[in-house]
Amino acid sequence: MIEKRTPIPVYEAAALVSRHHKHGEIEWVHLEESLHRYLAEDVTADHDVPAFDRSPYDGFAVRASDTAGASREHPVRFEVIDHIGAGAVSEKTLGPFQAVRIMTGAQIPEGADAVVMLELVKTYSEGEKQYMELKRSFQPGDNISKKGEDAEKGSVLLMKGTRITSGVIALLATFGYASVPVVKKPVIGIIATGTELLNVSDPLVPGKIRNSNASMVMAQVEEAGGTPLYLGKISDDFEESFDAVKKALEKVDFLITTGGVSVGDFDFLPAIYEKLGAEVLFNKIAMRPGSVTTVAHLDGKLLFGLSGNPSACFVGFELFVKPSVRTWLLDQKPYALCAVAVLSRDFPKPNPFTRFVRSFVSVKDGMLQAEPVGLDKSSAVTSLADANALVVLPGGTRGYEAGRRVHVLLYRDENGSEQLWPEMFQFSRS
Amino acid sequence: MIEKRTPIPVYEAAALVSRHHKHGEIEWVHLEESLHRYLAEDVTADHDVPAFDRSPYDGFAVRASDTAGASREHPVRFEVIDHIGAGAVSEKTLGPFQAVRIMTGAQIPEGADAVVMLELVKTYSEGEKQYMELKRSFQPGDNISKKGEDAEKGSVLLMKGTRITSGVIALLATFGYASVPVVKKPVIGIIATGTELLNVSDPLVPGKIRNSNASMVMAQVEEAGGTPLYLGKISDDFEESFDAVKKALEKVDFLITTGGVSVGDFDFLPAIYEKLGAEVLFNKIAMRPGSVTTVAHLDGKLLFGLSGNPSACFVGFELFVKPSVRTWLLDQKPYALCAVAVLSRDFPKPNPFTRFVRSFVSVKDGMLQAEPVGLDKSSAVTSLADANALVVLPGGTRGYEAGRRVHVLLYRDENGSEQLWPEMFQFSRS
Repeated sequence: MIEKRTPIPVYEAAALVSRHHKHGEIEWVHLEESLHRYLAEDVTADHDVPAFDRSPYDGFAVRASDTAGASREHPVRFEVIDHIGAGAVSEKTLGPFQAVRIMTGAQIPEGADAVVMLELVKTYSEGEKQYMELKRSFQPGDNISKKGEDAEKGSVLLMKGTRITSGVIALLATFGYASVPVVKKPVIGIIATGTELLNVSDPLVPGKIRNSNASMVMAQVEEAGGTPLYLGKISDDFEESFDAVKKALEKVDFLITTGGVSVGDFDFLPAIYEKLGAEVLFNKIAMRPGSVTTVAHLDGKLLFGLSGNPSACFVGFELFVKPSVRTWLLDQKPYALCAVAVLSRDFPKPNPFTRFVRSFVSVKDGMLQAEPVGLDKSSAVTSLADANALVVLPGGTRGYEAGRRVHVLLYRDENGSEQLWPEMFQFSRS
Repeated sequence: MIEKRTPIPVYEAAALVSRHHKHGEIEWVHLEESLHRYLAEDVTADHDVPAFDRSPYDGFAVRASDTAGASREHPVRFEVIDHIGAGAVSEKTLGPFQAVRIMTGAQIPEGADAVVMLELVKTYSEGEKQYMELKRSFQPGDNISKKGEDAEKGSVLLMKGTRITSGVIALLATFGYASVPVVKKPVIGIIATGTELLNVSDPLVPGKIRNSNASMVMAQVEEAGGTPLYLGKISDDFEESFDAVKKALEKVDFLITTGGVSVGDFDFLPAIYEKLGAEVLFNKIAMRPGSVTTVAHLDGKLLFGLSGNPSACFVGFELFVKPSVRTWLLDQKPYALCAVAVLSRDFPKPNPFTRFVRSFVSVKDGMLQAEPVGLDKSSAVTSLADANALVVLPGGTRGYEAGRRVHVLLYRDENGSEQLWPEMFQFSRS
């Protein structure tokens, strides 16, 4: 039963998975429900923004040429011929030395080409007429937000695959997207394997552990942008497990299993894949943690066999599942953001294989600093809570000292990498 | 009606608001619903992790001393006396040259003090007896995950105020938190003012704009961790608006209004605050955009009068509302992460007041780089979609050249600052 497996380099594994990436379909949701979804179509400006020349201030619209000689000693007087609030449009056209009282956001009246801020003028009445007086000159265009200066009609404002943040919502609302075209979330099934698993609410008993992976992976799926579908725990019975996996595949876009991938008598996920007729892309990766991560492919669906060890499971998800989900969502940068950081303390362990060290990356004086957190074992769970990045240490290295520059994958950053970590290719080959 | 206002420095404004910060109460939610909530209590380990000495690999548990002389030339033979899967516990105690077949995650049997990986042994049977043979020696403790090495019973694993991410969920599940103590979300009312506002679904008409602020602020509230409650648009009628604000205050923890704060005839939010008997903390800030941001306080509740200009509204929220929400949620770092970055292109505008420039911050060769995006006007909306940070340019400066180091507020970063931007204090005073 002991099968020999040949580990493949991590970039090769990721590249193999990427060949089976697919794109999700479109659906329309209310603007209010679109937060953190991904745009399924480009958003184009259907009108200029601003849609008209408008005033950025409360004040008076004037003809700049009339203000030419104004100074402290020689204030210039204007007759106020109209008052317009935001949302209203004046029907008057300004003549010489006439002004229109205007609110922030209101349309500039005909004839006017500058706005004088309210704070800079004196106002008074004489009989039925109202006047304002100013003491400095203005240039044509002063304090006018020009039609189209923010966005011109027809320009692409947002590319498909854009994640909808609060700032994006502002733009969608401005362009009248009460309903928004987003990518349908992939449904991602999760099956936990292992008789050693207790439910989260169970008391601990000797030899067993609580099933933390299912809850964790469900949360990772949500954070990646998918819909998690927990399909329960399966025991170590082959037929039962086979049926569970087969049924699951009918209702999901991706399937994740946790555990059952090691080279042990009771670990039979590879056998299930075989019986299903799935194509196994790889069943061993030259990396720590997560070396036993197995990915298969069946009828256009990816099957991720993640390790049962919490840290290995977590890393396997971030490296292989998340990019698949993000690509599905049309994200142009589906891979974790890859950057350079300075290691802030020694990491003396040798690395026979590429090692992903759970770390906390912060900024100090403009530079990224990476600090390994907690226990660096595939079974560790506490380090997952504090980490926001993986330091990538190439295989074949003997340990790293503080101050060394290292590559980090900032998996919690909103930005991503377009490419499959080209830097990783480089250093994995060196 | 034209009121003189005295602008106060932005850090002073933020400090004034912080004096009225409050903390939210506790509620219990299911683990599955706790993602991105904030912990209301410290989480302490109620048991060691691992709870028992366990095997990180599939293999054989042995007594290290028995392996002492093993080598290629002189393999050592062990009798396999038991098989234990993960979750099971062996009842046997190892004697000399005995081994127990053990799965990943299983408890180390009595007498054993090392684990030999499956890949390193040869197994065979003789009659009814099973044997394994190995060719190298092991030290006591080799390949054993020691009880408590990941977390010791009694240690604080997570501080209250921690945001619950997928990694945190793993920890909560491990410690049996099927139900999680989180901070109740604050209910944040949103009222939009201005007769110029169309609904998002309305066609454009001359002089009017769509109400993008309400949708944007609702999304900002959600991203900050609160529950948005949109209370509709109010017109420019004083009594109607007063009633709307008064009623709103009964059902919210914070109230946000957008628009109605400029020094114009139709902008009467200050008058409403006065009639309510609210204490106005400030009504003018020496900053761009958002100088008209007004914050008041009534019966323990903060009332945020944000600008009606989209960018000014957005910035006002990030600077003043979000820290209040995050403090409510017990976040120990409620202020936007403040860091240093290199400006990647010229910003030639003079800055009479502190200026917050919507920018995109990325990492290049380990250094943060800040690039101003889009149109830098308070009325701009397109720049909000692309920005992930505000470059902070101190008042009294004449413009900045590419290559200059500047302070940035990384308002989309999951991390924050504990303090009210001490760096900003520094440079605002210089």
